[in-house]
Order: sequence, then structure tokens, then C-alpha cells
Amino acid sequence: MTTDQDLAELGQQFRVDAVRATATAGSGHATSSMSAADLMAVLLDRHLRYDVNWPAHPGNDRLILSKGHASPLLYAMFKAAGLITDEELLTFRELGSRLEGHPTPRLPWVDVATGSLGQGLPVGVGMALAGQRLGEVPYRVWVLLGDSEMAEGSVWEAFEAAGYERLSSLTAIVDVNRLGQRGPTRHEWDLEAYGRRARACGWHTVEINGHDPKAIDAAYAEAASVTDRPTVVIARTLKGRGVAAVENREGAHGKPVPDAEEAVAELGGERRLNVEIRPPAATTAPRRPPETPVTLPRFEVGDKAATRDGYGQALAALGSAREEVVALDGEVSDSTRAEFFAKEHPDRFFECYIAEQQLVAAAVGMQVRGWTPFVSTFAAFLTRAHDFLRMAAVSRAGINLVGSHAGVAIGQDGPSQMGLEDLAMFRAIHESTVLYPCDANQTARLVVAMADASGVRYLRTSRGATPVIYGPDERFPIGGSKVLRGGDGDGDAVTLVAAGVTVPEALAAADRLAADGIRTRVIDLYSVKPVDAMTLRAAAEETGCLITVEDHRPQGGLGDAVLDAFADGRPVPRLVRLAVTTMPGSASPEEQLHEAGIDAASIVEAARRAVA
Amino acid sequence: MTTDQDLAELGQQFRVDAVRATATAGSGHATSSMSAADLMAVLLDRHLRYDVNWPAHPGNDRLILSKGHASPLLYAMFKAAGLITDEELLTFRELGSRLEGHPTPRLPWVDVATGSLGQGLPVGVGMALAGQRLGEVPYRVWVLLGDSEMAEGSVWEAFEAAGYERLSSLTAIVDVNRLGQRGPTRHEWDLEAYGRRARACGWHTVEINGHDPKAIDAAYAEAASVTDRPTVVIARTLKGRGVAAVENREGAHGKPVPDAEEAVAELGGERRLNVEIRPPAATTAPRRPPETPVTLPRFEVGDKAATRDGYGQALAALGSAREEVVALDGEVSDSTRAEFFAKEHPDRFFECYIAEQQLVAAAVGMQVRGWTPFVSTFAAFLTRAHDFLRMAAVSRAGINLVGSHAGVAIGQDGPSQMGLEDLAMFRAIHESTVLYPCDANQTARLVVAMADASGVRYLRTSRGATPVIYGPDERFPIGGSKVLRGGDGDGDAVTLVAAGVTVPEALAAADRLAADGIRTRVIDLYSVKPVDAMTLRAAAEETGCLITVEDHRPQGGLGDAVLDAFADGRPVPRLVRLAVTTMPGSASPEEQLHEAGIDAASIVEAARRAVA
Repeated sequence: MTTDQDLAELGQQFRVDAVRATATAGSGHATSSMSAADLMAVLLDRHLRYDVNWPAHPGNDRLILSKGHASPLLYAMFKAAGLITDEELLTFRELGSRLEGHPTPRLPWVDVATGSLGQGLPVGVGMALAGQRLGEVPYRVWVLLGDSEMAEGSVWEAFEAAGYERLSSLTAIVDVNRLGQRGPTRHEWDLEAYGRRARACGWHTVEINGHDPKAIDAAYAEAASVTDRPTVVIARTLKGRGVAAVENREGAHGKPVPDAEEAVAELGGERRLNVEIRPPAATTAPRRPPETPVTLPRFEVGDKAATRDGYGQALAALGSAREEVVALDGEVSDSTRAEFFAKEHPDRFFECYIAEQQLVAAAVGMQVRGWTPFVSTFAAFLTRAHDFLRMAAVSRAGINLVGSHAGVAIGQDGPSQMGLEDLAMFRAIHESTVLYPCDANQTARLVVAMADASGVRYLRTSRGATPVIYGPDERFPIGGSKVLRGGDGDGDAVTLVAAGVTVPEALAAADRLAADGIRTRVIDLYSVKPVDAMTLRAAAEETGCLITVEDHRPQGGLGDAVLDAFADGRPVPRLVRLAVTTMPGSASPEEQLHEAGIDAASIVEAARRAVA
Repeated sequence: MTTDQDLAELGQQFRVDAVRATATAGSGHATSSMSAADLMAVLLDRHLRYDVNWPAHPGNDRLILSKGHASPLLYAMFKAAGLITDEELLTFRELGSRLEGHPTPRLPWVDVATGSLGQGLPVGVGMALAGQRLGEVPYRVWVLLGDSEMAEGSVWEAFEAAGYERLSSLTAIVDVNRLGQRGPTRHEWDLEAYGRRARACGWHTVEINGHDPKAIDAAYAEAASVTDRPTVVIARTLKGRGVAAVENREGAHGKPVPDAEEAVAELGGERRLNVEIRPPAATTAPRRPPETPVTLPRFEVGDKAATRDGYGQALAALGSAREEVVALDGEVSDSTRAEFFAKEHPDRFFECYIAEQQLVAAAVGMQVRGWTPFVSTFAAFLTRAHDFLRMAAVSRAGINLVGSHAGVAIGQDGPSQMGLEDLAMFRAIHESTVLYPCDANQTARLVVAMADASGVRYLRTSRGATPVIYGPDERFPIGGSKVLRGGDGDGDAVTLVAAGVTVPEALAAADRLAADGIRTRVIDLYSVKPVDAMTLRAAAEETGCLITVEDHRPQGGLGDAVLDAFADGRPVPRLVRLAVTTMPGSASPEEQLHEAGIDAASIVEAARRAVA
């Protein structure tokens, strides 16, 4: 058993290593690491339970460094635990090193990337929910936050959610070092300012001196002993603690200390302490019944059905076949149709209320623990979680997002409710998949396909009923498309590229054009990313002109996606882009499509001009 | 003077009109309007001070319907105040009507669009800050919130900011009707749950029965009497109050009542009450000195300077010339260089801490009051405010956003800090302007240009110093570009289209290609939206191939922007897109550009392939 003095030494070792790593790199956050060194020393040595040889061990505690800029501290911990060598420690921030400026899962002991502040606690809520509500697995979730990030609303979405859900396995540790990047924080060392807010949200709070190992140890023990609510340990610390040149000084953020050698000496020199992390409690992974074939809903060709209904029914069916599927919704499950899943699988449904950042973060936390989350809300409101989606990609997270009420086609509710920028947002997410079905059978198939894909997957659904044009047995691979008219040679004069609600419009337009003797090819580009380059290129060669039609802004959506098939120097066809260039008001769905210039009549007009 | 009984009657009139408007429209939120009818009746008749004939009157109180779906209530108020006729009321949600499903500034008495929840209070904070800190104008800001939106983190960013800034002119009114869209809210009628949280943030709280005019009146008077902090009136109400078929019932959200005629009768029939709104206190607009010419910083050609420095210095200069310019930053003003402005104009600088939603919302609120805000943070973290930016466009707001630390060029800090999706996000915002300068003089000029533009304007700046290639007197109109190499006929074999940090890379590439005998045109496309279609088309015709090079994801950025010049059916040149397709780690800026394939060497290679 280590003594409190040993713990103090371990804290100093972390400081020394943070100083050394940042000095070698010539950049990085030394002082932010030093303030939290004692907090992490006590956690690593006395409280964390983790099998370092099996990071995915179901009983492993989770540690999230929400203040990701303190990465040198985390890497110093990994070194003390024997996970990396001192040599690797000193590769910090070098090209090719796993030890990036902010932690990412390139390191097997890092579950999620951090560095955009205010994300660690919401993700931790997802992990704790998975442990307490899904698996009854006795791991604890520890999240180290900085005081600056307490200003982020997402942190308070997490306080609210964790308090309400009584997530006693979750412990937040706030490193109140008083200084943000460019000066004092709002509340400086007023620990009680944070305490009041946390208690108001139903948390247990402990306020301590964050440099007193005994007090830290007692606080963590207290946190573990509180079984009906989460605990936040609010620790008063000194930024740059232990090195007079930077301790509690402004202007020392985000850089090495001025004289590393002197600082190391001041900290008592290098140490070679090793920590034996305690193993997790003996436990087994949640046993799941074997996967069974999915019995998808079947819609009749010629009927009408909303793609959001296809989504809800397919998700419920997928949930029956696969026990690892969970659903989360932002208080609109009656609209998104996630309620179909909620009714059949209430134990695996999470009502996240109107807090989209927490909604997405919870999913990121759950996928770390082996669950397959489907997140739904209005497409427009997923923009609220843009930064979390961006970071999910850095985290190499596998999550499914479903945005309903896309486009002007929603009708009377008006622009605040219309997802008109969602395709642009999701296309720009690294290695994302973006799907936009036009009928309910296609939707159902894509729900299964996306569940098996990797990375951030997005499905865009529509509010109103649209004609079922595909049979229930048709297949829709990701990256594919469907040629619905023409395509049997080069007799087609023009190609219409549509997706979602514009597919029926394009088909109607093709019929009218055919009556005029204009043979038209129609492509259903349901896979917006990746796009079916081969089909688009064939259409380009054979018809010479592609008209894209989308219920989305002209930027970043279907029209731009088509360019993916041609942006490598090969000949590009003529392109005409029909998209929503107006600011819509209220109107019926049909009126909206017409006003935006993306209905059948508008397409006919554009096609006539194109072939003239 | 009206009696309490008159107020009750006015509330009933609002309910009747909400029932009628939604019934006529066949959609809309009747029950959400009915719960807050008494709260708004008392406000309109007894407390709001507003010159209806002069919405921009500097002394006018501001009213924000944060629960924008209760628009029928707002329109009923406008009718009672004589601003719209009963006939217009019944155009609710019709094509062309100003009375949209959710309020927008198409109505002169609506300052900002609402309907995406959790935005009204943060915007109100901006308005109150403008009144209290900038103008000392004695108006009050009233914000009506629903209880469901209290789950949004942005609301708590606003509680935090307003409490800290002691915005006593701000009153939040929470309509706690217990029911969200699909069922009960987290806290149902636990008013104290909200009260605890608000008091923890430094607010004064009053809990009342939201259907008791006397209690409401007293609460608003109390709010006005508290001079050292903001007040929140937390009102227990009944959703659908007054109509038994829907009152306090689930499943009645977002739709007309089942039998409007019966409901109107139950509510006591139609009434024709008129309200004379009290005029604002006699006041004058803040007197501003006349604008003077801007003395921009001048950088020497051949020197090196970071565009973020150009931004900070130009903004400080603009602030000296124009008293209406204000700056807001998200606790990174030392990095964005907004600190240059803060030092010269501390009274017009707002430290918003790490809360990007509140940051952008404050700017939206300030521009309503005639200020010209510049908002800055890292480009990556502006994604946090995506929904607010989207709604700013619906609000027809004029705001300037500046995102620093764009792209992989930041170097060692890694992907969490890199803005790689910002161009896609801003391009998709309706009627936005997107600028991406490559040198400090260009940046300075663009700062002035964007200040005079309309809508959402975005400027992307870079961390590292880059060569100054333009003289300080060069002009850079929005929508323009600069041809830096070639362009004097059709002898150019290929065109490089660059912006920001890729401009020096493209120039270096052109030099190397010239040495190989490949004449290359280089376009600095600093105006990403709108793009200079004429110059791009000329390059297309004369060189046949455009290579775009951008420090951004391949989706939605520079490469896609070029398509704007060709997406109308005219011949498209061959296109090659160089962009960041990898997941970067840490590395030096030069290594990052090379790894991403957007440095001079990569461009040379691509150009050689293109002309082969």
C-alpha cells in the first residue's frame, strides 16, 4: 500500500514528466497538467480499476480527460502504469507519435478524443448510463474537467442528465486552477459557485484542496460510497503548481515552462515510480442472445408511407434481432418515430430531452461500451451537436444519426424546423456515411445497412408520406444508386439526379418530358456519401448533362456530392443544380417544393433549358 | 387602468384567437399558446413599454418568444395591440403570410426568429448587455420560455452569463406547463427544480401560478424592482388551459384543438379587447460620434505576418473609426487576436468565456440594437454554434464571425483544434459571405468589407505567419479574386485555385512548374462565397483544368465552391480537388500540409498529372 507521501511523489513525477514532454516537444500544456497531477496520482494509484492488457474489459473503469489539453499528464500516467516507455513519452506531439497534442483513441487506453472542451462529461454520462441501465456492470466512470469548460452549456446538459438519471457510478473531478487560457475564469476559486450549481442538479458535491492526497483520497472514497446520485469533486488547485516561474501566473497557458531543467530540479528531479493499477472486479460482459435475422417491415408498392415511419418500424425490428441496438431521442420520438422502438424495447430506449449535445455524446459513450446507438431528432436540430459529431469522427466512434423533418417539404412549420444544411454538415464529417432514402422500404433496408457500417452514419428522413416505389426485397448497398428511368444506352438526353422527396418529383418530371419526346434518365442517389461514381460517370458520358435536385441548400449537399465522382481530373458533364435558394416561409409541402423550385414543374423547365 | 378581471378576459381572448388561428390553418400549436396566455396578457397590458409605430425606438422594451411554436399567442397579442387585423390573424401559416408557423422578422415587431428552442434567452442576454453595458438605455428585455427548452445547455449558458453580468433589465418567464411534445418534461411541475438552478447562477426567482393575473402582475413588478440581478418568473400553468378536451392532456401538442367552435364557446366566445401598449420612457438613441476613416495596419510585402494578427489589428482600427463596432470572444482572445480590440476599446469588448452558443447569440441580440458585432473563437469551435448561425440567417441578422486556427496548418495541437469543416458550415448558411484571406493586408481590407456586408459574414484566419504578398493599398471586393500567376491569355496549361495557407503553396508550385515549362495560372479565391464566377470561367476556358487546393475537408469547401461558377449548365472544366482526406495527428505545420497532400510538392505532382 502506498503512503500519502508516495502519492505526493507520484504527483511530482507526473509534473516532471509533463515538463519534460512539453519541453522536448517545444509546445503543449505543461501548467494545465501540473494543476491536476495530484488528483490523477491518487486516482491512478488508489481508485481506478483497470486491466491494462484488456482495455475493453467489461468491468474496467473509464477515465475521460475532458480537459484534453492536459494530455502530458495523461501520458505521464500511462508511463507510470507501464503502458508507454519514457522514450515514447518524449515523442509527444511528433509526427507519427500516438501521443498527440490532445488524446485520441490511437492509444488503446483512450476511449474518446478530447480537446474540444465540455465534451468529456456528456460522453461519461453515456458510459455510465450503459453501465447502470443497460449492463448492470459495476464499473465507475471518472471524468477530469477543467474549470474553464464549466461555462459550456453541454456540461450542464450532462449535470442535468446525470442528476436526473441518478448516475452514482459517475464521478466528475473539476480541476479549479482559476486560470483559463487568457486570464481568470468567471468564478476563479469560488468552489461553491460550482457546488451550488451541481447540487441544484441533484449531484453530491465535495470541495477539497486538490493538492492534498489525503483529502483527494477521501473525496474519491466518498464518491464511491454515494449510491443514489453522481458526485463531483471540486478541487482548488494551482496552475503550474510546483514551479515558481509559472505557478498561478497568467500568460503561462499552453506552453512549456521557460526553463525545463530548472523546473525539474525545483520539482525534485526525475523519479521512476511505477503504479500497479488495481484490476477490475471480476465480471462478465453483458450476455447477449445471438443475433437473429431481422424481420423488416414490408410496404406495398403503390401505397404511401413516410420514410420516418419506415425508420421507426425498421429500428424496432432491428432491436428485436439485435440486443446491442439502443435508441436515443431528443424529446421528439413521436415525430422521428423512434417511439416504435421505445414501445417494443423500453429498456434500451433513452429519452434525452431537448439537449442535442448530450444526446449525441451519450451515444458516443455507449458505443465505447459495445452498444450500437441510433440517435434521432429533427435534422435541423442535429446542427446543435455539430462539434460533437466532428469530435466523434476524431474518436473513431461508430454511431447512427437519424434526422427527420428534412427540407422545405415539412410544410407549414417554417424554416426554423427545416433541415436544410444537414447534408453539408454530415458530408464534411471525416469518413461519414450519408443516406437519404425516398421510400419506406428503402429506408428500412438502409437502417440495417447503416447499423453495420463504420464511423458516423447519417440517415435523412422525411415528414410526409411518399409513394412506395421499391419492393420490400430490393437491396440498397451503401455507395449504390438506382437508375429509375432510362439508362439502357445513350438515348437519354439528360439525367436527373434526385434523392428523398425529390425522387417522386423527378419521376413525374421524366414522365412529362417523355411526353415531349425528351428521354430522361433518373438516378435515385440515396447514398449521398459515398456516391455511386460509376453510375454517375456513365450518365455523364451517355447524357452529357446532369441536373441535381435536392431539398437542401445548394452548398454541400447532393449537387456538390455529385462532384465527388468527377473531381479527379476526368471530363465533367454539364451540371445544373436545383436546390433551395430562397428563405422559405410557411406553406403546404407542395407549395414549398414549388416555391423552392424543386418540384416536377421546375425540373421539367430546367431539363428543357438544358437540352435546348 | 385595466382590472384583474380585464386581464383574465384578455388572456381568454388570446386563447380564443390561438384556437381560431390554428383551426383555420389546420395546424399549429394551440395548447402551448393557451398555457402562456395569462402571462402575456399581463405583460402586454401592464408592463411592456413599446412604441408600436417605431419598432426600432431605442427605448422600446424587447419581447422574445423563445418558445416560438406558441406563435399564435404572439399574433393574438399583435392583434390586440392593433398591429394586425383579425383577417390577417387568420392567414396564419398560409403561403405568403407574415404569420409563419414560428415567428420571424418578416413582422416588424419580431426582432429574431425563434422555433429552435433554447435560443431566446441567450439572444436576450445580448440585448440586455447592449442596453446596460453599451448604451445605458433603460429598456427591459422579456423572454418567454417553455419548460421543455430548459434542458438545452444554451439556456444555462445564458443563465450563467446573465447572472455573472448582473443583467437586471432581463426577465425570463418560464411557462411550466409540465408537458413537452411527447410527454411530461423532466421536472414536470417542480418549479423549485428550476428555481434552485437559477438562483445558483445568481438570479432572483419568483414562483407563481401562471393563471393568476394578480400574481403575474406582482411578479413582473418585483422583477423590475430588483436592480442587481436578472429575475426569472417561474409560472405553473396548464397546457391547453380552458378547454377540457385538451387541458393538461398528453397527445395534444402541436395541433389545433379537436373542436374549435366548441372550444371558443367554452372559452366564453370571441372578444374584441384592445390594448394600448405603454410608450417607452423618453430616451434618445446612444449618440455616436460620426464615423471617421479607418486607418488600417500596413504590412510590408515580403515580411511575414499571421492573418489572425491582421484581423486583430484591423478590428482595433475599425473600432476606433466606428463607435458601433463591438467585439465578443470565447475566452481565446489572445489566440484570435481580438485582444488587440479589447485593449483599445475595453468598453466595447465582451468576454463570453467558453460558451460558443451564448457567444453567437449575444452578437445576434446586439445587432438588433444597432451594433456591429465581431465574434471570434477557433474556427473548429464555431461548429458549437451551428444552430444559432442557421437561425441567425432566418432572423436576417447581420453578424461577423471570425474563426482562427483553421486547418491542419495549426500543426501540433492536432485535429480537435483544427477547423476543417467550417467552410462547409458557413457556405450552407443562407445568404452568407465566406472569406478566407492569405495575407495580413488582405485580411485587414476584408475586415472592413465584411463590416459593411449583410447577413452572416465569416472570415477564416490562420495561426502561423505567412508571407505578405499584397501591398497595403490593394483592394479586395467581396465576390472577387486575384490572379497571381498567368492569366494573360490562354498560354496557361492549368489553373491552381487556392485560398489562405494554400496560396503560398500554390505560388511555390507554380514556380516549380514554370521551371519545368508548365505555365500555370494561380487564383487566390479569397472570396469563397460568393465566388468570382467570371474569373473561374475564364480560367476554365483558357486552361481547361482547375486544381483546387484547400486546408479543409473535401466536402463543402473551396472545391465545391468552384462549382458555383458552373452549376448552371455551362461547360465545366476538368476539376481536381486537393483537400484534407486524412485524419491528422500532431506534427509541424509543414509536415501537416505535406501529410494532407496540400503542400507545394503535392500540388506540383497533381498539376503534372493533370497536364500529362
